[in-house]
Amino acid sequence: MYSMSKRKSTLVIAALLGGLLWYSGSVGVVAQAGEGNGGSKTVEYTPEGKMKRLSPAAYRKWVYVGTPVTPNDMNDGKANFPEFHNVYMDPESFAYLEKTGKYRDGTVLVKELVSVGQKEASSGAGYFQGEFIGLEVSVLDTKRFPKDPGHWGYFSFGHSYPLKEVSLPNKVDECNRCHEANATDFVFSKHYPVIRAAIAAAGK
Amino acid sequence: MYSMSKRKSTLVIAALLGGLLWYSGSVGVVAQAGEGNGGSKTVEYTPEGKMKRLSPAAYRKWVYVGTPVTPNDMNDGKANFPEFHNVYMDPESFAYLEKTGKYRDGTVLVKELVSVGQKEASSGAGYFQGEFIGLEVSVLDTKRFPKDPGHWGYFSFGHSYPLKEVSLPNKVDECNRCHEANATDFVFSKHYPVIRAAIAAAGK
Repeated sequence: MYSMSKRKSTLVIAALLGGLLWYSGSVGVVAQAGEGNGGSKTVEYTPEGKMKRLSPAAYRKWVYVGTPVTPNDMNDGKANFPEFHNVYMDPESFAYLEKTGKYRDGTVLVKELVSVGQKEASSGAGYFQGEFIGLEVSVLDTKRFPKDPGHWGYFSFGHSYPLKEVSLPNKVDECNRCHEANATDFVFSKHYPVIRAAIAAAGK
Repeated sequence: MYSMSKRKSTLVIAALLGGLLWYSGSVGVVAQAGEGNGGSKTVEYTPEGKMKRLSPAAYRKWVYVGTPVTPNDMNDGKANFPEFHNVYMDPESFAYLEKTGKYRDGTVLVKELVSVGQKEASSGAGYFQGEFIGLEVSVLDTKRFPKDPGHWGYFSFGHSYPLKEVSLPNKVDECNRCHEANATDFVFSKHYPVIRAAIAAAGK
């Protein structure tokens, strides 16, 4: 290894490059364009600035961070976010979070909404996940959201199927203000133990 | 590409091999030893047959499949599985499931237990994840569990921290019988929408 020939070097470089390409393909994530410089390509937009709906085949292999459940039956039959909220972070941004404890420019969080199915099972009484019913996405992107608080944009593809194919960003008052006021750095990490553990371990 | 030289073929093979190795490393999973032949190396055992506790750095990057919640306050203060159960599948077995609709020999499911933190938040009333409190693992392994129903083995590292470092398999009556009687192919996929979607999409 220490006296590597040119031929061998080429092979090693090819192998590493193959690794990167293969991994990108396997998680369905487009390579990031300039870490820390905004312009995430994990999500795509129409020329009018509408976000294109992400593929479940991609985000369901991202890093899962936590699941609140706000069941309709605990919210007068109509929860703001029915009912389970499975939340994922794109893996490159999670790796950055693990290293630095910070959300990098380009961070994407997906919130997949799932209905309550059963409320009683062999494991006890509780809430059990039924069917996929909705999808929301938030993105930290300094270039796309230069004036929004924290540079976070929030998108909803609906709370019932069929989902919308594209989504304009929600108004600042609809999402951003609540995240700014009630979350930490705009992320509800207090409900996401995987994020809290990653931040706690960063730099150790 | 159609008249590939020997040299180029070697490079391509090296690249693909590099890809596989790189991916295995990135998700913290040891390569499988013979798909369909048992002997999963995703989990490790002591010579006495105790499973070694898995690293969160590995399984928290596996494929998330679903979260039941059986809160203590809905189960007379003492749920069998307190309280959120975040369930993951190792990525190679999930890829096999997506392709075939079947659980391959070597499938590993991790159930990470998380306490209920808050019950009220800006998003409504409900159950919100608090702290990690426990860890259980099930493995389909024909070689290690030749006589257990379905060849599934079940391990618990505890329902409160600190977790055990190693775990003997639970007795068949403690876990396996209930999975055999109440689950589908020993997996509670009825509570895991990600698994149901993968099986439904297999072969399409």
